[in-house]
Amino acid sequence: MTVMEFSIFPLDKGTGLSKYVAEVIKIVEKSGLPFNLGPMGTVVEGELADLQKLLENCHEYMESVSDRVYMTAKFDTRKGAKDRITGKIESVKKALNSNDLS
Amino acid sequence: MTVMEFSIFPLDKGTGLSKYVAEVIKIVEKSGLPFNLGPMGTVVEGELADLQKLLENCHEYMESVSDRVYMTAKFDTRKGAKDRITGKIESVKKALNSNDLS
Amino acid sequence: MTVMEFSIFPLDKGTGLSKYVAEVIKIVEKSGLPFNLGPMGTVVEGELADLQKLLENCHEYMESVSDRVYMTAKFDTRKGAKDRITGKIESVKKALNSNDLS
Amino acid sequence: MTVMEFSIFPLDKGTGLSKYVAEVIKIVEKSGLPFNLGPMGTVVEGELADLQKLLENCHEYMESVSDRVYMTAKFDTRKGAKDRITGKIESVKKALNSNDLS
Repeated sequence: MTVMEFSIFPLDKGTGLSKYVAEVIKIVEKSGLPFNLGPMGTVVEGELADLQKLLENCHEYMESVSDRVYMTAKFDTRKGAKDRITGKIESVKKALNSNDLS
Repeated sequence: MTVMEFSIFPLDKGTGLSKYVAEVIKIVEKSGLPFNLGPMGTVVEGELADLQKLLENCHEYMESVSDRVYMTAKFDTRKGAKDRITGKIESVKKALNSNDLS
Repeated sequence: MTVMEFSIFPLDKGTGLSKYVAEVIKIVEKSGLPFNLGPMGTVVEGELADLQKLLENCHEYMESVSDRVYMTAKFDTRKGAKDRITGKIESVKKALNSNDLS
Repeated sequence: MTVMEFSIFPLDKGTGLSKYVAEVIKIVEKSGLPFNLGPMGTVVEGELADLQKLLENCHEYMESVSDRVYMTAKFDTRKGAKDRITGKIESVKKALNSNDLS
């Protein structure tokens, strides 16, 4: 399973972009994949092919309203791991309480 | 004010990285800046110079334990805006409930 | 047409990664899409669906040799524009020689 | 030494951005650091503190002309390595000619 963080926005719509982001979130919701809306991007977990399809759908929408679209994405794939949207944060919090690297 | 999302990790420590991320989070906490720990990165809000200083501190730690360090960051600066870690999400949620782009 | 910059690497192979990157470049070459190999990533131009397919192929290779794979990508789509791998740089160079924003 | 790839642009200036990018490149040139202008970003090599200072200078310019600025950066630091803007590409080309991972 892959965890992806992505952001997408138009370059020709000025400074207020929340209504465009909202449309993207609707597309993410329709995908049925677990996701987490953040202040700088949305995190989604799934098979890479499904994540790529989601990016295409979001991009298709954004192209329909804008002449220049910018999109960033990063992907983290760990063999045998799942439920990582919550799991990765829990691992860090656990390490915060217990580790001693000094 | 600028909102920054960043991630930093070593390339020579294998697949389990939470203890290194935990040390980074401790450095973020010490900065006193508002932040949000996410599954793919940490979001922090502040003046750009303070954010850059934070990146340097996190990088200094990671270099002390690793021979190859990778770091990504993205920055969104909007004039006159603040409290955007929560504000950006609220704007999108508000737009989700009200907008009609069809 | 979309211009994409991407990088992909394993997290469990230590500090020397050029042989893995070389395999990725072979996959990019096979795609037949115009590309440019850079020190921090590879730039490729094409239809978004073709770029996504390329990312999947590169990722499939990297997953076959690694238990944890990291990939970043950014995409810039401008309506009606093409040959932008060279064109974007030429536009900036032209602006460097002529603009006066002072 | 660290190799950084970055891009910075305004969100309120429409689709044509080369004149803004040209101003950024002038700032990069003034830094005296080795750099490489690419179609999706600029690669610069130096000490992390110098790279951060450069980002701040570029950002300061962009904020002076725009009400919303977006910037992305990624950093790769390898102990004991230098001249990596050219060196990283040469390593991959060498691997392309010699490696056999099959």
